Amino acid sequence: MKKLSMEELQSLSLDIRKFLVEKLSKTGGHIGPNLGVVELTIALHRCFKSPQDKILWDVGHQSYVHKILTGRASQFDSLRQYKGLSGFPKLEESEHDVWETGHSSTSLSAAMGMAIARDVKKENSYIIPVIGDGALTGGMALEALNHIGHEKKDMIVVLNDNEMSIAPNVGALHSVLGRLRTAGKYNWVKDELEVFLKKIPAVGGKLAQTAERLKDSLKYLFVSGMFFEELGFTYLGPIDGHNFEDLFENIQYAKKTKGPVLLHVITKKGKGYEPAELDRKGTWHGTGPYKIETGDIIKPIDAPPAWSSLISETVRRLAREDQRIVAVTPAMPVGSKLLGFAEEFPDRMFDVGIAEQHAATMAAGLATQGMKPFLAIYSTFLQRAYDQVVHDICRANLNVFIGIDRAGLVGADGETHQGVFDIAFLRHLPNIVIMMPKDENEGQHMVNTAVQYDDGPIALRFPRGNGLGVPMDKELKEIPIGSWEVLKEGKDGVILTFGTTIPMAMAAATELEKQGVFIRVVNARFIKPMDEGMLHSIMDENIPILTVEEAVVQGGFGSAVLEFAHDHGFHNTVINRMGIPDRFIEHGNVNKLLEEIGLTKENIIKTMSSLIPQKQKRA
Amino acid sequence: MKKLSMEELQSLSLDIRKFLVEKLSKTGGHIGPNLGVVELTIALHRCFKSPQDKILWDVGHQSYVHKILTGRASQFDSLRQYKGLSGFPKLEESEHDVWETGHSSTSLSAAMGMAIARDVKKENSYIIPVIGDGALTGGMALEALNHIGHEKKDMIVVLNDNEMSIAPNVGALHSVLGRLRTAGKYNWVKDELEVFLKKIPAVGGKLAQTAERLKDSLKYLFVSGMFFEELGFTYLGPIDGHNFEDLFENIQYAKKTKGPVLLHVITKKGKGYEPAELDRKGTWHGTGPYKIETGDIIKPIDAPPAWSSLISETVRRLAREDQRIVAVTPAMPVGSKLLGFAEEFPDRMFDVGIAEQHAATMAAGLATQGMKPFLAIYSTFLQRAYDQVVHDICRANLNVFIGIDRAGLVGADGETHQGVFDIAFLRHLPNIVIMMPKDENEGQHMVNTAVQYDDGPIALRFPRGNGLGVPMDKELKEIPIGSWEVLKEGKDGVILTFGTTIPMAMAAATELEKQGVFIRVVNARFIKPMDEGMLHSIMDENIPILTVEEAVVQGGFGSAVLEFAHDHGFHNTVINRMGIPDRFIEHGNVNKLLEEIGLTKENIIKTMSSLIPQKQKRA
Repeated sequence: MKKLSMEELQSLSLDIRKFLVEKLSKTGGHIGPNLGVVELTIALHRCFKSPQDKILWDVGHQSYVHKILTGRASQFDSLRQYKGLSGFPKLEESEHDVWETGHSSTSLSAAMGMAIARDVKKENSYIIPVIGDGALTGGMALEALNHIGHEKKDMIVVLNDNEMSIAPNVGALHSVLGRLRTAGKYNWVKDELEVFLKKIPAVGGKLAQTAERLKDSLKYLFVSGMFFEELGFTYLGPIDGHNFEDLFENIQYAKKTKGPVLLHVITKKGKGYEPAELDRKGTWHGTGPYKIETGDIIKPIDAPPAWSSLISETVRRLAREDQRIVAVTPAMPVGSKLLGFAEEFPDRMFDVGIAEQHAATMAAGLATQGMKPFLAIYSTFLQRAYDQVVHDICRANLNVFIGIDRAGLVGADGETHQGVFDIAFLRHLPNIVIMMPKDENEGQHMVNTAVQYDDGPIALRFPRGNGLGVPMDKELKEIPIGSWEVLKEGKDGVILTFGTTIPMAMAAATELEKQGVFIRVVNARFIKPMDEGMLHSIMDENIPILTVEEAVVQGGFGSAVLEFAHDHGFHNTVINRMGIPDRFIEHGNVNKLLEEIGLTKENIIKTMSSLIPQKQKRA
Repeated sequence: MKKLSMEELQSLSLDIRKFLVEKLSKTGGHIGPNLGVVELTIALHRCFKSPQDKILWDVGHQSYVHKILTGRASQFDSLRQYKGLSGFPKLEESEHDVWETGHSSTSLSAAMGMAIARDVKKENSYIIPVIGDGALTGGMALEALNHIGHEKKDMIVVLNDNEMSIAPNVGALHSVLGRLRTAGKYNWVKDELEVFLKKIPAVGGKLAQTAERLKDSLKYLFVSGMFFEELGFTYLGPIDGHNFEDLFENIQYAKKTKGPVLLHVITKKGKGYEPAELDRKGTWHGTGPYKIETGDIIKPIDAPPAWSSLISETVRRLAREDQRIVAVTPAMPVGSKLLGFAEEFPDRMFDVGIAEQHAATMAAGLATQGMKPFLAIYSTFLQRAYDQVVHDICRANLNVFIGIDRAGLVGADGETHQGVFDIAFLRHLPNIVIMMPKDENEGQHMVNTAVQYDDGPIALRFPRGNGLGVPMDKELKEIPIGSWEVLKEGKDGVILTFGTTIPMAMAAATELEKQGVFIRVVNARFIKPMDEGMLHSIMDENIPILTVEEAVVQGGFGSAVLEFAHDHGFHNTVINRMGIPDRFIEHGNVNKLLEEIGLTKENIIKTMSSLIPQKQKRA
């Protein structure tokens, strides 16, 4: 590739675009972001020596072209599938994947670590983090920019500016970029400078006033890169991200520049495939399989996320009566299905951009004023706001309603997106209520319960994907906090479970019944507080208990049951736990993953059966 | 106060300074930050109507003057003591404390929530977050600035710029502030503009070059507030924070300005008390009691933090041989006792400022390059980097050595600083090793163990305060990962404990021995992985187990023991757990706090005794 002519490079770009459009039409994936970085990725691999020079892809869903150029084209049929090619860079997949990602805004910090290592080891290499304009608003990216600028380490930060993150971008920084984008590096010299020079009056007189006027008229001019220059970077740009000459010239210049460089590259998401190129909503950010000719999405990976829709629409319904309700989302208005809410209540809906920490504490601020913020956030992204949930929400015991979307395994996005830690990282926090519904009807009642609850923070977990299609009650009810529900009676043993694992527990109990074993199934819909009355009576019966959860077992719901047993002197209760084991779960179809980790009906039957004789032996 | 003349205000300032210097000389506290904001706080309370207008103190340790002005002067004798006045704003303490704090950089997000609430409710009030220049580098503050600038909400952000956070500030943003500070609002017009105008050549010719030159020479001029103006704020300043006229004038102007305003106020930490005013190291940021006349600190609250010192000095010792070691601290070089390391290895020590997320991921970046980063971080601040620990460190299984300082109860700083959650929020993460030493000798061996360990992340917890004064081995050893140690033999029951609670467990066992009850005490120094061999043999003996930990009990070490028992079929083992209950623990002397929550020798004796008969009854 290093020796290809310009024409050959153009033709390579076309081939890659065709390959991507074709392959992803079958597997689905992040088509938009990847079509946008074809030339940029080629240019980086041509101008740098990977893996000696280190290219870091922030977030990482735009690394497909990089994967193609580093020998993985043949694996694209298995993209994002069980045991297949990951949709993100993976250390173990290739030596060219120098940084594992999934969550946004980490590349600059990682790059800084690599730059320090290089300098301590007195090695020579270029470090090139590639970060989107959306990811740049994440707090940790700004922390890193500040530190990199301060330390003046050699590093070439590529700002891949496509004016979108997943949804259109938010924030003042975004308008700074907007001005840069339109200013152009060369244009301003020609056009603005003339205007400016003509405006300068004779020296003397009211200098202050003059300066003020100058400031306004010149702001545009001087804004060019000023923001980044102020932070200690050499700013180069804006650069046409689809023009090889422009890219090569600026990259070569960046390579010769000492200290940190910010290469401002303008790209177009979806470039070269019309349906994706024309997309303004984020539909083509990541999709399921589609028909190439028409751009009809056959079955979008993310849609219909009925759960998100049900929850957000119920919040919207309640917001009509309840002026206290304000919705807050960190860059996920589409995924969290809040567009309807936003349309109906534009003044009560806030997309804060990729800024989970700010979102959580802003919700706390709202709650101090008697509002009822609905913080819509994916389980995996709530990890970013752990400290804010601890201190700003739970400690002050504020009425924040946290809607935890995508709780449990999520499938194709894999390790970084599995929503499996939230119970373990929330359960030990004082004051919080955590619940999960068995179906969408209970889900809507839980939304109502959360809105009516005024005794502190309350979290409602719900899974990715669709509801079960159950009939919906017209009237919204309140579910007593901490109350569980017996779904099936039985005297030989008890399964305590909630949410997505209820159907397999019910099926297991039904099958066991045929064998003459009668298992009670409890909808343990409140993970905290638990139904202590029911737990007391179950443990008084002294029948074996099996807890089942689609979440990490260490410190999870099952552990809460163990804790209850021993705290209340039930030291002889037989309790087994099923859940996600102590390792990261990779990407793949959720059912395959559940099978792999043994979270299945069959295993419930097996485990429960093994407990029963044990129990009977002792009796 | 609203009616006081300028002279009376000056005299009030003097009185408050005298009061603070006198009171804090007995109780200790954050003297430096508070002496710096006397005039600013008076000005805010004079110009605004608290609590209708909302003044939010970021971090909050600079709220003493605010507390004095809002009727709490008489409680200063009990400052930071058990059941006494908190060192931070507390909602329950006063209606004037509208935002609870402790951790840095939250005030802007909270203020944004309050501003939205105000506008939704169509109320009128001023919202005034007061944030230090150090806190401004925290990622969430930058996220909030970005969002506030975008939304253009009415808000008056007071930037309290004292050129210090706790230690001197770090980061490019800091030098932006430095330029603003020295530029002055009025000076630049007079001085710079003349220079600039003289430099302008005739129109035409090499415009690009000219413009480049212009840019350099003018940068200074246009930098004035540009950074914040770019983000959408009206910038006012710099303002002399010890000059009432300057303060009043600008605050009044800010009140009339629509949209967000940034009031850049320059203050001097320690102002008016010479020892604190001359401090450049951060010694007078927070101190213990001192002699007023001489400025001799009688017994500094934070010193001698022998634990921090021991750990950091052992790291330093190993760094002499091991070039892979790099130290990283988020703004805590003094508290973490890393100044010696920094002096010896200036190129291998990085203070990244208040930026925990960046610190953690930068450490991960270092580890990808074969380095051995030592991430020195307080337990409470590690909460800010939870997601980074999950994804960037544990998922990729990188060799990051996390030194968790101030683990357990910390005392006077209270709720926001107690290091009690770390076991519960780390234990459920795959790949991580968590350990805590029984004394400083074991501590140094654990540092060595962590440095030699190359199989993934390893965390070493250690408490605030001093070691036990045990003799130190000359040679450093490696402690086998996951190995526990029997400190005292016994056949009637077992106490599993680690770190700070070992002495009380030993004392309890010794006392029980006199009653003829023989309790084994185990140093469970590895919290993860546990000593499974020893657990098997204890549970085979079927004697009662008591776990004791200075950390939250839900999901903590004791729960890990419960999990082990039931996962391995020991369903009949009697296990009780002692630890921190499910509520936030306020400030006060650690021993008093331990007594309050029942984490005492007496309670261990009582609980263990209650388990023995139970055990014997069953036998």
